[in-house]
Amino acid sequence: MSSVNLNRAKLLISCKDQPGIVAATSDFLLKYRANIVQSDQYTTDPKGGMFFMRIEFDLEEFETTYKLIESEFNSIASKFEMYWRLSDPNKRKRMAIFVSKDDHCLMELLWRYKAGELTVDISMIISNHKDLQSLVESYGIPFYWIPVTSSTKKDDEQKILSILKDNIDFIVLARYMQILSPQFVAVYPDRIINIHHSFLPAFIGANPYKRAFERGVKLIGATAHYVTNDLDEGPIIEQEVLRVNHRYSTEQLKVAGRHAERIALARAVSWHIDDKILVYKNKTIVF
Amino acid sequence: MSSVNLNRAKLLISCKDQPGIVAATSDFLLKYRANIVQSDQYTTDPKGGMFFMRIEFDLEEFETTYKLIESEFNSIASKFEMYWRLSDPNKRKRMAIFVSKDDHCLMELLWRYKAGELTVDISMIISNHKDLQSLVESYGIPFYWIPVTSSTKKDDEQKILSILKDNIDFIVLARYMQILSPQFVAVYPDRIINIHHSFLPAFIGANPYKRAFERGVKLIGATAHYVTNDLDEGPIIEQEVLRVNHRYSTEQLKVAGRHAERIALARAVSWHIDDKILVYKNKTIVF
Amino acid sequence: MSSVNLNRAKLLISCKDQPGIVAATSDFLLKYRANIVQSDQYTTDPKGGMFFMRIEFDLEEFETTYKLIESEFNSIASKFEMYWRLSDPNKRKRMAIFVSKDDHCLMELLWRYKAGELTVDISMIISNHKDLQSLVESYGIPFYWIPVTSSTKKDDEQKILSILKDNIDFIVLARYMQILSPQFVAVYPDRIINIHHSFLPAFIGANPYKRAFERGVKLIGATAHYVTNDLDEGPIIEQEVLRVNHRYSTEQLKVAGRHAERIALARAVSWHIDDKILVYKNKTIVF
Amino acid sequence: MSSVNLNRAKLLISCKDQPGIVAATSDFLLKYRANIVQSDQYTTDPKGGMFFMRIEFDLEEFETTYKLIESEFNSIASKFEMYWRLSDPNKRKRMAIFVSKDDHCLMELLWRYKAGELTVDISMIISNHKDLQSLVESYGIPFYWIPVTSSTKKDDEQKILSILKDNIDFIVLARYMQILSPQFVAVYPDRIINIHHSFLPAFIGANPYKRAFERGVKLIGATAHYVTNDLDEGPIIEQEVLRVNHRYSTEQLKVAGRHAERIALARAVSWHIDDKILVYKNKTIVF
Repeated sequence: MSSVNLNRAKLLISCKDQPGIVAATSDFLLKYRANIVQSDQYTTDPKGGMFFMRIEFDLEEFETTYKLIESEFNSIASKFEMYWRLSDPNKRKRMAIFVSKDDHCLMELLWRYKAGELTVDISMIISNHKDLQSLVESYGIPFYWIPVTSSTKKDDEQKILSILKDNIDFIVLARYMQILSPQFVAVYPDRIINIHHSFLPAFIGANPYKRAFERGVKLIGATAHYVTNDLDEGPIIEQEVLRVNHRYSTEQLKVAGRHAERIALARAVSWHIDDKILVYKNKTIVF
Repeated sequence: MSSVNLNRAKLLISCKDQPGIVAATSDFLLKYRANIVQSDQYTTDPKGGMFFMRIEFDLEEFETTYKLIESEFNSIASKFEMYWRLSDPNKRKRMAIFVSKDDHCLMELLWRYKAGELTVDISMIISNHKDLQSLVESYGIPFYWIPVTSSTKKDDEQKILSILKDNIDFIVLARYMQILSPQFVAVYPDRIINIHHSFLPAFIGANPYKRAFERGVKLIGATAHYVTNDLDEGPIIEQEVLRVNHRYSTEQLKVAGRHAERIALARAVSWHIDDKILVYKNKTIVF
Repeated sequence: MSSVNLNRAKLLISCKDQPGIVAATSDFLLKYRANIVQSDQYTTDPKGGMFFMRIEFDLEEFETTYKLIESEFNSIASKFEMYWRLSDPNKRKRMAIFVSKDDHCLMELLWRYKAGELTVDISMIISNHKDLQSLVESYGIPFYWIPVTSSTKKDDEQKILSILKDNIDFIVLARYMQILSPQFVAVYPDRIINIHHSFLPAFIGANPYKRAFERGVKLIGATAHYVTNDLDEGPIIEQEVLRVNHRYSTEQLKVAGRHAERIALARAVSWHIDDKILVYKNKTIVF
Repeated sequence: MSSVNLNRAKLLISCKDQPGIVAATSDFLLKYRANIVQSDQYTTDPKGGMFFMRIEFDLEEFETTYKLIESEFNSIASKFEMYWRLSDPNKRKRMAIFVSKDDHCLMELLWRYKAGELTVDISMIISNHKDLQSLVESYGIPFYWIPVTSSTKKDDEQKILSILKDNIDFIVLARYMQILSPQFVAVYPDRIINIHHSFLPAFIGANPYKRAFERGVKLIGATAHYVTNDLDEGPIIEQEVLRVNHRYSTEQLKVAGRHAERIALARAVSWHIDDKILVYKNKTIVF
């Protein structure tokens, strides 16, 4: 909700599992009088597996102590060869949303943002079309129109990168119908969230909804995932399905798909904002 | 429920859509003083599409009237070139269940049968293993052990067909781990129901649960379908999904898959028993 | 979707069950060369129960034939003492939305409307607060601010009725925090749709979310229903639930409740628009 | 699954929240070379709230170390005034199931037990009817028939208590149609699990399914909870709903209710067995 506790930090850790991680980390936090209010921990395999932890803690005299923790935790981290990050409630994440023409995912994010459900700053919205410009600007959010064509794609992406530069923390592809190059993706590892339709069974290739209609599927779904270089094959964050039946036309299946996309994407984005996700290999740990 | 209304027949129809089908059919039924208690009708496309109808109706003096309807409806049917079938509540469908070693789908069907939820006769259970024999026999149902090997498959299927012959109306593959030959399938068109796991995205091939685990799926599903010659590609009857998370081991994903299979298969079987399903091309109409 | 078939009418019927209704109706429609593309029929009890039917049919030379059907169907209707209504695709229903300060249900309806998912005209939005005025007006929809106080309620409702008069077909209470008087409700029988939270078990009275939190519920729901004089006790149209857990604060339960409300209300409204609902006693038949 | 890790213990803790709990506990466990493989922690309110923690850890030289931990943890526990319990994988919990005549919940538990999904011992099944005796005994589980009448209830419960005595750890009421006395409930605090139907809205009192039918509910649910002296008002463990529609008869709503009950109860029981539940006031924390 809108009422963010400005004394509450989050620490996320992953490293090879080994004895003593929890003890060392909680001793460290205790030293700074951190009061742990929530923590989750998971190990893929106690023998040689990976260890993941997420801790929420409150600090008194937040500013001073937070800085100390930030600078001193390396002593622990280096000992266990941790990947770690600390999240400061006073620094909202800055989100860029990429869209094309479909507005359903964008609208859902904007509404939850305005309702105070997403504690994030929306730095900008980038589109390869002009269609949604006035809608976006009515929210007071900067809108950049960057048309992308196959012949100029490299330059177009450079243009986008220069706009994003230092201004954002992560990107949401809210039905952005351009494939990002590996060079672009590499700039934001595990920080680009995409949404795509999903079906059981899969209908790979063209016209998936038409084929889902022809097959008479009973469920229509959507999958939110981090973008990697394997198209739509990155780590899954969230999935949602809705029931349909033979009376749904191809067009109505698409509507159901849109509703599933809104729900799955909005949840994935809120979890990313709340630092609830750790990525390991091609998989997410959502605490 | 157990309280089957023995005066209630069901008529299922499909044919090319054209004006007058509903009127002709309802006039016909009225002539025999049938009281229509439920009916559903669907057209894929009013211009040149297919028409599907399912009618439940009650008859007075059931036996005489039912026979008349059965013999006289051809006059209507031939006019519209209908596929049609009539279902007599006094003749329970006879079901054969094929299993291998996993008992979860079998058990679900046996319970619902015993609880009076499935108004069907279970004529026999056929297995390529002996594991479930005593369980089945404790229910008083004949059990046939027909081991199937690749070299003798043709003969084995012949053996099965000779046991089934005239004794059953449809077959449920309740985790039967043998692929039926096209010759076998052709004997029971749209009358063999299978269940298989399903994932979004699809994990085709070996070890699907292991790959679902590695990909960190958030939903595990199952699809019940009619068997055609395209393995697991027949018309879908029902689908079910259950939520899972990163804490589920591959083994626990399999457990979730089993629960989804039980639910989806049992629903599909009950709809088949209640004559709720019409098949058209590779799709079901479930009324 | 947006592509409404302007030759497709809908006929809804309810009456005491008796032989011949379907035949008489389909004969009648055949006479006007109506092509029935979908129909559903349900009887509460074949002996002395109520009969409900909904038929979608296409007409050639729509305008002329529709008028004929409209004027001539009374001959059938009076014979069977039917309640019936006919729906003209060329006349969109006119909807008024009542809101207070919460915008989540309103926004959901406005999007679906704008996305072409609701084939309806939104005639006006009425609120007892000014908060949502500029939002509504950005959609080009008339907004009326009618503050309601307990002492002036009678007059306030008269004012509202005079604005609605002849301009609308039904009302959606999209989180309108005023109780309508029996006199008001009587003007729009089965034509006022409301949404309210719902819980298992029920938490009747004040602070339901706080009590749901204290009880540790695992599901949060919403119920869309027609308004009758029994507060929140009218015929249920649709219900939706979302999973929650102990980590949800009271505030977060409310957020989940809002999401459930959006989904349940939007579905109920779309079914009302598509003439899918018949009401009988305190119950809906949703075809 | 069946493959229980016999070196894995679980520690559950609750106490007033205060700094240092996690550090003290993890230091303690490290001293015994426990390898924490999963942990969850939750605080109702960091200022004066309650703290809950569940830790799974692996031990080398299990037997010796486990005993040491068991005897030494009191030093930590008393410092923080903890409620705590330790769970030994080598000691399966012993479950008693109470039933009356309905077998659906019992069957679900027996099947999951047999499938290795519930790592528990079923010590006995107690019933006030003889109906399910042969079914139970076919599983090789002792069955006790203890008829209960209102006049002899006190004695009947004494009889039951004397059979249970020292032989069981918790009780599952799998559709046991007798109300347990406060004296009985007091013997097994937070260790009696019950299942009951649940509806939105609530239909309190007689014939709930009939009233749900008359109201035309669209969802049918079940709630599993711990038994307290307030009938059906104890801490909720799990809830499940299934979709229904106007075509469901009262009888068919009951069938849907049974399916919801099976699912909700089986999940609740498996979580209790796996020590995933902590109770605080009238609420569960399910980790």
